[in-house]
Amino acid sequence: MLAFVGAVLSVPMVGSAFIAKGLKGRDLLKPNGRTSGPWIPECLGLPLAAIYLGLMMMFIPFPFSHMFHTSSSLSIGRETFPQGELTLYMTSLLSLLTATLLGFIDDLFDIRWRHKLPIPLIAAIPTLMVYYSEGGWTWVVLPASLGKLLSTLGLPGWEGTKSVDLGFLYYVYLALLPTFTTNSINILAGVNGVETIQALIIALSVAFNDLLFLPIWPDWLLEALHIGNAEEGRILSWAAGEVVKRHLMSLYFMLPLIGVCAGFLTHNWYPAKAFPGDTLCYFTGMAFSAVAIQGHFPKTMILFFLPQIFNFVLSCPQLFGLVECPRHRLPHFDASTGLLQPSLTVFKEPPPFKTKIALEVMEVFGLTRLERGSPDSGAQTKTETNGRKTDGSSTAPPVRIVSATNLTILNLILVHLGPLHEQSLCFVMATVQLLSSMLAFTIRYGVGSLVYGGDRR
Amino acid sequence: MLAFVGAVLSVPMVGSAFIAKGLKGRDLLKPNGRTSGPWIPECLGLPLAAIYLGLMMMFIPFPFSHMFHTSSSLSIGRETFPQGELTLYMTSLLSLLTATLLGFIDDLFDIRWRHKLPIPLIAAIPTLMVYYSEGGWTWVVLPASLGKLLSTLGLPGWEGTKSVDLGFLYYVYLALLPTFTTNSINILAGVNGVETIQALIIALSVAFNDLLFLPIWPDWLLEALHIGNAEEGRILSWAAGEVVKRHLMSLYFMLPLIGVCAGFLTHNWYPAKAFPGDTLCYFTGMAFSAVAIQGHFPKTMILFFLPQIFNFVLSCPQLFGLVECPRHRLPHFDASTGLLQPSLTVFKEPPPFKTKIALEVMEVFGLTRLERGSPDSGAQTKTETNGRKTDGSSTAPPVRIVSATNLTILNLILVHLGPLHEQSLCFVMATVQLLSSMLAFTIRYGVGSLVYGGDRR
Repeated sequence: MLAFVGAVLSVPMVGSAFIAKGLKGRDLLKPNGRTSGPWIPECLGLPLAAIYLGLMMMFIPFPFSHMFHTSSSLSIGRETFPQGELTLYMTSLLSLLTATLLGFIDDLFDIRWRHKLPIPLIAAIPTLMVYYSEGGWTWVVLPASLGKLLSTLGLPGWEGTKSVDLGFLYYVYLALLPTFTTNSINILAGVNGVETIQALIIALSVAFNDLLFLPIWPDWLLEALHIGNAEEGRILSWAAGEVVKRHLMSLYFMLPLIGVCAGFLTHNWYPAKAFPGDTLCYFTGMAFSAVAIQGHFPKTMILFFLPQIFNFVLSCPQLFGLVECPRHRLPHFDASTGLLQPSLTVFKEPPPFKTKIALEVMEVFGLTRLERGSPDSGAQTKTETNGRKTDGSSTAPPVRIVSATNLTILNLILVHLGPLHEQSLCFVMATVQLLSSMLAFTIRYGVGSLVYGGDRR
Repeated sequence: MLAFVGAVLSVPMVGSAFIAKGLKGRDLLKPNGRTSGPWIPECLGLPLAAIYLGLMMMFIPFPFSHMFHTSSSLSIGRETFPQGELTLYMTSLLSLLTATLLGFIDDLFDIRWRHKLPIPLIAAIPTLMVYYSEGGWTWVVLPASLGKLLSTLGLPGWEGTKSVDLGFLYYVYLALLPTFTTNSINILAGVNGVETIQALIIALSVAFNDLLFLPIWPDWLLEALHIGNAEEGRILSWAAGEVVKRHLMSLYFMLPLIGVCAGFLTHNWYPAKAFPGDTLCYFTGMAFSAVAIQGHFPKTMILFFLPQIFNFVLSCPQLFGLVECPRHRLPHFDASTGLLQPSLTVFKEPPPFKTKIALEVMEVFGLTRLERGSPDSGAQTKTETNGRKTDGSSTAPPVRIVSATNLTILNLILVHLGPLHEQSLCFVMATVQLLSSMLAFTIRYGVGSLVYGGDRR
């Protein structure tokens, strides 16, 4: 609650100082946005991070103190001083603060894309170093069926193997996690509120997942739902000891994050009066990675990023040069209607064969909308429905692909749901994120327990 | 060494980007410094802090790892994983990073003096919170003679009392420490190199003090000097266990600090090509406070700040309004000679009686130089020697104090050593700092052992 109130109050207070210092941007998706629109303060992730980190620091004595030991209502057995957990707490804060500082430096000095990419990894160093120093767990539970499969394939040693030590490879995964949780949200920036609401929904999902592990559920609820262990108030009857502590720790980090994101949304929602900047994305992304690494649930965490994974896979042809990638891929603002349309990559030259094939395959799956025309006629003059209905193989040779919608999830939503108002697009994206979280819970506790055998720690 | 090389290389690399972003200042103590001098990048403490923190993060696995346990050459008994020390390490880094971020925000947004003052305290919160959470030690060793004195005065319970629990008061002291270690260096900013060299000498002193506690000294040296315990290689024969670990930790923090300060001095020495900004002062000051609090030697630390304490006491009349305080109190640049002279506070009105008395007392002790004249003649037309030789009590009533040299240690040096070149002033200040450190060691291990009885932990 303090985080929410702090975010609501602080953003208008510092806005003008940020504009004065050049931390400002124009809203590209508004009438005359590029040229004469009003300046909007950018990089407001900084005060949000400051509020969050300040609260987290003031919170230190509550879980980690001799004073409050015996009064612990959660009775998870704190006989001795929780030194190890305090280390994890401080380490996560250190990673978050590093991410904030680097994000702010990035916002200030406009670091080039290539130099930006390792920033989340640098911020994750404290977390990874401590994970390593403490002899970090690098074993992964194997699906029960995989062992059988491998033994059937002539690898008899694998039968009965329930877990495998990935060693260095596990660190590679842990090191890539912050890069992904950070950039996958940042890449969708540009539509009012869209980064903030993604972070908010993911934070809510992680917090809800943490609650499942805690022995806090009333008997009547568990009995009515026929789940868990009503006597202990646990939904996951096997969750105990170390696992509970880790998810309690994760909850400490998620609750104020929900607060600042929800508070900031009041300013960042359409029409935005403040932009988050890279700072917020780095900071929230690092929070997700830190709790996932320290809480030993990096695989569950990645499930809450399903829309971002989809967006990354969808973007691959543009990110890796198969299709041209313009500097901005955010949707196109149509000043005449006030609605957003998918933005286009226009091919001045006929695209090479492999690009053509890739785009046509994607068109079949409804992932992009191609526009076709003869080389001499400009792409802009073609109607959109024309491009859609023409079949590449049946038309005369001079007709070629002149443009494709940019390969992002936001453009994809616009391709299928028609031109949308900016607010509606953000709302649809939030709905997608929310539905994906529900799917994630189904996979984690439904399919997951079938494949892995229930007791997944 | 890496910190030194990093500081030497990085400062010129980022300088132009800092100037482009408005992080720049003019050198006030150069010809035409205020108006047309070249822009010099300001706030270079940021890359220094980044290098320092990066190195400290990469260093985590070396002292805190299962891998390196048995090969520890210092044999200070690391049977179990040093979880508690890792917490201290992370906490100190967190405080340092907070100080860096807040210092940078201060440099960027020019926070007002009153809002600035609590910044070091905020940065110290992680350190203080962890100190408190771990049931921090608040006992102070009493001088042996004080117990006797108190019992003689009719307080019989005090006899034999060797230490006393200051409780909350000790926290007040610990909370004030970072405010002092930070601002006391910052207040002297303005002369090329002077902040950096102060920080460097203090860091060297702390590191040397740490070395005294470690069992690393060769037998022949200890035998030749007739000190310590040659068999164990200890100078302080009583230093063992926890105390050694704490000073080893402190050394981890001081060595790269020496590196970055020495490296930055190559750019910040006269004529300065880069300014440290508040960031460096906050960052180094916080480093000193963090190691002092975590290492349980806050009283020893304050001894290394003798010139800063002197400067603070000297400044009190101006800080607390007894004497007018101009915005800048740095020495005055005399363009005709190229030398620095003490800057003056000019009294347009006759100063009030209490101010007059205070200034005249300070004049007697040689702490300021007053200029006297009749009210109608301007202060600027008086020669300096005139003001010096006139005795306030013997002159006619209309003659009053028209100006006083500003009450800082730098101006005081100039009062007594005549006009000095900027480089010479910095050199003199460094000498003062070095001599004070020697005095500090004498007090700590000479007088201190007499008063406290040797075995001071």
